[in-house]
Amino acid sequence: MVGRSSEFDRIDRFLKPLAAGFQGALGLVDDAGVLTLPASQSLVVTTDAMVEGIHYLAGEPPDRLARKLLRVNLSDLAAMGAEPYCYTLTLALVPDVEDSWLAAFVAGLASDQAAFGIHLLGGDSVSTPGPTVLSVTAFGRVENGRMILRSGARPGDAVLVSGTIGDGALGLRVARDGVPGLDAEHVRFLAGRYHLPDPQVQLGQALPGLAAAAADLSDGLIGDLGHICRASGVSAVVEADRVPLSAPARSMIALDARWRKVALAGGDDYELIFTARPDALAAIQAVAEGCGVQVTVVGRIVEADGQTPEARMIDAGGTTLKGLDGWQHF
Amino acid sequence: MVGRSSEFDRIDRFLKPLAAGFQGALGLVDDAGVLTLPASQSLVVTTDAMVEGIHYLAGEPPDRLARKLLRVNLSDLAAMGAEPYCYTLTLALVPDVEDSWLAAFVAGLASDQAAFGIHLLGGDSVSTPGPTVLSVTAFGRVENGRMILRSGARPGDAVLVSGTIGDGALGLRVARDGVPGLDAEHVRFLAGRYHLPDPQVQLGQALPGLAAAAADLSDGLIGDLGHICRASGVSAVVEADRVPLSAPARSMIALDARWRKVALAGGDDYELIFTARPDALAAIQAVAEGCGVQVTVVGRIVEADGQTPEARMIDAGGTTLKGLDGWQHF
Repeated sequence: MVGRSSEFDRIDRFLKPLAAGFQGALGLVDDAGVLTLPASQSLVVTTDAMVEGIHYLAGEPPDRLARKLLRVNLSDLAAMGAEPYCYTLTLALVPDVEDSWLAAFVAGLASDQAAFGIHLLGGDSVSTPGPTVLSVTAFGRVENGRMILRSGARPGDAVLVSGTIGDGALGLRVARDGVPGLDAEHVRFLAGRYHLPDPQVQLGQALPGLAAAAADLSDGLIGDLGHICRASGVSAVVEADRVPLSAPARSMIALDARWRKVALAGGDDYELIFTARPDALAAIQAVAEGCGVQVTVVGRIVEADGQTPEARMIDAGGTTLKGLDGWQHF
Repeated sequence: MVGRSSEFDRIDRFLKPLAAGFQGALGLVDDAGVLTLPASQSLVVTTDAMVEGIHYLAGEPPDRLARKLLRVNLSDLAAMGAEPYCYTLTLALVPDVEDSWLAAFVAGLASDQAAFGIHLLGGDSVSTPGPTVLSVTAFGRVENGRMILRSGARPGDAVLVSGTIGDGALGLRVARDGVPGLDAEHVRFLAGRYHLPDPQVQLGQALPGLAAAAADLSDGLIGDLGHICRASGVSAVVEADRVPLSAPARSMIALDARWRKVALAGGDDYELIFTARPDALAAIQAVAEGCGVQVTVVGRIVEADGQTPEARMIDAGGTTLKGLDGWQHF
């Protein structure tokens, strides 16, 4: 069968090189990998899957797709304050997938393995009539008791975000539908932020002991802050005017003010949202500068006051903005 | 939407109870779980995925399906000599999946969590137009350096199998096509062995220090022994007449001798195949008896003699039986 490999050939040709040099992967010749940790460290484990046609389009370049798959998982590790370590890969592929597609997919993985210092530990490859389903389980390391949880927010905490908000959501519209009148450089920036997020791996590792609670932004600012609120039993108020927007996002909003709500709802930024006691803010600004990352206070944690914990965003007049609750896949 | 839950409701209602009481799962409120291990132990990690229509039929009862999904992963842990610990679950489900299906699926997981002493650590749930894709990454614990690898076989080793061989492969035919003339009790036994394998979790944990190399039987006896041979750089000869067959398998072969080859090729037994130095055989028989498991010497490891390492099966006259190389999904 020209241009296609059997499952075992595939593992040999495409996946084994990704595990080379990482002892725990056992050369992918066993059906399992092995990890050892010093007693002072804990292992953080996270899983994210992507389905063709739901989370990405069929024509997505496979190298970029592979990198995004890794990065959305690395973003979860960053939110816990963990150092990236290794990952397992589960591929449900259509039988007629070309070796050239696999080669590009693997090249993307190899590139980000090097960029983020992670290794392939193992995985499984199965056949499906389609759509393709790609899943990564990522492993990070953190000193015992130092991981940042969603449940640590307390009334009086500041709410902060890294980077700029809304670029991913706007970038999806730019990439999928086009936005007439938008500067070509801004098109590239926004589409790039959607296609290939830049997880805050370095900042995340600097936050244990400084951040009280954290999540990564995959369901939108209010959606993900809502997860923190429910886990912590608190509520949160975010001021829309304090949410940091990139210059390209501001340009797009200048073309049509309705894009502002898309930006504020967000959904695919893979920035960090976190809370901190006020006395930690100066230290946080210092470590963020050290990472070359902008962090911005956008709101505060308040008592839930017997109500269901919730996150909300208010405009300059104090009115709550509606319809920003984040994406639900179903 | 009657009878359906949103993703977050689903996690709350169906998955959180599976993680209750397991500290590392953090109540599933974070996007990650956390594991700590004593410095004396290693973590064994394995992944197996199942696709509807490929690895199981659409009408498969969800509780049994869930248990099989866990068990094929537990079987991989058993082959490494590891103690089951916890697992992550990735579900790619169709949007119209009924809550009743999910409830039964979760009941199956809960049942086998109790049976095997494992816990849900985390996971991801995504939407797919179908087919459903189910994936588990399972974690086991083993004392450092005690895991059994595929690469430990040496010439002179005996080749052993646990239980009986071929029941899974025959059971698939019985369940899918029916076999006229087969006793109803034998139909139940063989179909049951296919639908719900019984991974050799206890035996596996007793084998470190005794077995030299091991794998679980998912690709067939010769297919999986071939993995051991290639990993170890040796070859293997199995005598067909020594391969243990169950009474129901022998009844089915008595109806039509062609079933014998199906049984010997196997494919879905989830028994263990392992090698051992001759001086370990008495101790292995003793621990197997302690586990209530039959183990049988079926062949021997030989030098590859400069040839490609391979496993083969010979009949009583010494002729190599062909076409037993195991299943390939593509």
